[in-house]
Amino acid sequence: MTKILVLRLGHRPARDKRLTTHVALTARGLGADGIIIHGVEDPKIVHSVNRVVENWGGPFSISFCSSWKSFITEWLERGGEVIHLTMYGVPLPEGLEQIRKSDKDKLVVVGAEKVPREVYDLATHNVSVTHQPISEVSALAVFLDRYFNGYEFCKEFEGRDIRIIRHSNRKKKDS
Amino acid sequence: MTKILVLRLGHRPARDKRLTTHVALTARGLGADGIIIHGVEDPKIVHSVNRVVENWGGPFSISFCSSWKSFITEWLERGGEVIHLTMYGVPLPEGLEQIRKSDKDKLVVVGAEKVPREVYDLATHNVSVTHQPISEVSALAVFLDRYFNGYEFCKEFEGRDIRIIRHSNRKKKDS
Repeated sequence: MTKILVLRLGHRPARDKRLTTHVALTARGLGADGIIIHGVEDPKIVHSVNRVVENWGGPFSISFCSSWKSFITEWLERGGEVIHLTMYGVPLPEGLEQIRKSDKDKLVVVGAEKVPREVYDLATHNVSVTHQPISEVSALAVFLDRYFNGYEFCKEFEGRDIRIIRHSNRKKKDS
Repeated sequence: MTKILVLRLGHRPARDKRLTTHVALTARGLGADGIIIHGVEDPKIVHSVNRVVENWGGPFSISFCSSWKSFITEWLERGGEVIHLTMYGVPLPEGLEQIRKSDKDKLVVVGAEKVPREVYDLATHNVSVTHQPISEVSALAVFLDRYFNGYEFCKEFEGRDIRIIRHSNRKKKDS
């Protein structure tokens, strides 16, 4: 099965902790297999995300990388594709048609405010979720929802302790 | 035409500035008409959002309210509907079928960590974008994308100074 990982660029620990956590939870909840964060390892985010995986199930991996360029280059060398979400790209509906033609593993790249030009050049696809300034969290969410075509609404996570009992508005422990 | 506003609950100026800004930009970019933020008025967010509207077009309104309960109650009394996005709700695909049956104005409510029980009781629809912890930004994005059925990819904003020239990877001033 095609593997989908998310690469989050430009994480600054103090400023971006919550946004990056939202990117990670969105990646997990909407069907990606893991996230790689470019920047200095931030134990708080790792802890938050791993706690969600422990309670709500997985698998979902989280790791950090110090060079996005090496990471992307190696990903491409190993035969994967890179999808960069940017407002300057091809509109998503059109981009998805191209993306669906290949079953190669996908690395979905989302940035913070400024993304280096090289990312655009290295990417297999530069895809836009609207040509408006929205949020990397939203762009990732809409991309994954459309890519998986609603699969996330029936995905079963493994090893979870919590599941939602529908309509009850309450959490319930599995055991 | 049906009006769509977003009500953002539980905004804390210091902690939530960036996330609330991402909620607002997502609301605007994906087709909502405005946002109401519950909490103390925060000039920084108003400035950020209005700057985007000035440069990228509108219309899009931003305001604050001190009582979410009064706001929701008055909205309902004026004949509008309230859609609360929560992981405890009816799955979105099913919820949308119900929501589409009415052309009443919609107030889409997104919370921060804890949403008071009364919101669930007051809402016309409690709708879930997955039963997993994701992000209010993602939940709103997926809801609006599906509600508007991709309309956001061709929406024209009025009075903008900037537009994206497709594929060029560059911003260009209109004039």
